[in-house]
Amino acid sequence: MITIDFWYSIGSTYSYLTVMRLPAVARAENLRFRWRPFNVRHIMTEQGNIPFKGKPAKAAYMWRDIARRAPKYGLSPRLPAPYPLPELVLANQVAILGAQEGWVADYTRATYRRWFEDGQRPGEEPNLSGSLSDIGQDPADALAAARSQDTVAALAAATDEAMALGIFGAPSFVAGGEVFWGDDRLDDAIAWARHGRLA
Amino acid sequence: MITIDFWYSIGSTYSYLTVMRLPAVARAENLRFRWRPFNVRHIMTEQGNIPFKGKPAKAAYMWRDIARRAPKYGLSPRLPAPYPLPELVLANQVAILGAQEGWVADYTRATYRRWFEDGQRPGEEPNLSGSLSDIGQDPADALAAARSQDTVAALAAATDEAMALGIFGAPSFVAGGEVFWGDDRLDDAIAWARHGRLA
Repeated sequence: MITIDFWYSIGSTYSYLTVMRLPAVARAENLRFRWRPFNVRHIMTEQGNIPFKGKPAKAAYMWRDIARRAPKYGLSPRLPAPYPLPELVLANQVAILGAQEGWVADYTRATYRRWFEDGQRPGEEPNLSGSLSDIGQDPADALAAARSQDTVAALAAATDEAMALGIFGAPSFVAGGEVFWGDDRLDDAIAWARHGRLA
Repeated sequence: MITIDFWYSIGSTYSYLTVMRLPAVARAENLRFRWRPFNVRHIMTEQGNIPFKGKPAKAAYMWRDIARRAPKYGLSPRLPAPYPLPELVLANQVAILGAQEGWVADYTRATYRRWFEDGQRPGEEPNLSGSLSDIGQDPADALAAARSQDTVAALAAATDEAMALGIFGAPSFVAGGEVFWGDDRLDDAIAWARHGRLA
């Protein structure tokens, strides 16, 4: 079965559109996505790439663009969601633990739902424990493991891997050795994985 | 007939994809585009929004993304095209003169063709005179008018109008009072103009 790597950071706003629809896309398209959390903020800081901070026109557009696109995917977010996320790193440490333990997609969707639909910041309470409880994980156990040296190292390694692939933003897809950036490039990534060219 | 405002700057790389396909889209969709050249560099400088300069990963991605998407529209560019354009302002002064005189789309397509297919920078020779000759305009007359105080003022006024609309990048479409940014938002803009929502 075709596998596409889905690179994202909890903290990326446009990733909401991808995270919430990806399981349905996988079923409809009969393909697999490998969920790859990384620290996009680290890469953006490294590369001097600041998407919205201090850019009110661009930030206002981003929220409006998400608001217009969400209904296409059956989503009803409350916008703007809190942004940026002070605890982005911890949120993604939990996600990478979830990737190791098999619950990354469920956790990511739960935390985004609470972020975009209930206004709860990922990486902070009550979102952290609530999202873990929602998916049947013990919050205390998972948070202790998420804060461990091993998990910190795993997130750093994933971030280095993303950077080496040429990823500079989230969400990104890697299909057939090529990077596709943005929720709006999902169709391109699928076409590329299938045919080595766009539809 | 539905009219969509197409705001662009000669100098924007992604605008190549839009400029070259827009007349065919207008025919196929039975709608009108109003070509609105403006000075995107002025807005970006004002807003501290630097898309590619000093960002090699993002710049490399942009060229690859255009290379992958161009064949979908029947285009065969030679990439990367020269970038950025030192004479962006003059190129857009010619365009805004063309908007006043009815040849803006033809000139813009001619100058982009020479830029992306022959490697000639817009706003400089031989592109300037060549593009004007290609479309049956007298280069000396048109360039004198493009450099006049009136044309300089017209480009500044269009740029102020774009900024007031919330435009921060190129290409952008304005449909039903809303801004849509990026060649990849053309379908959204058309859907919005028709239905006030996305398809």
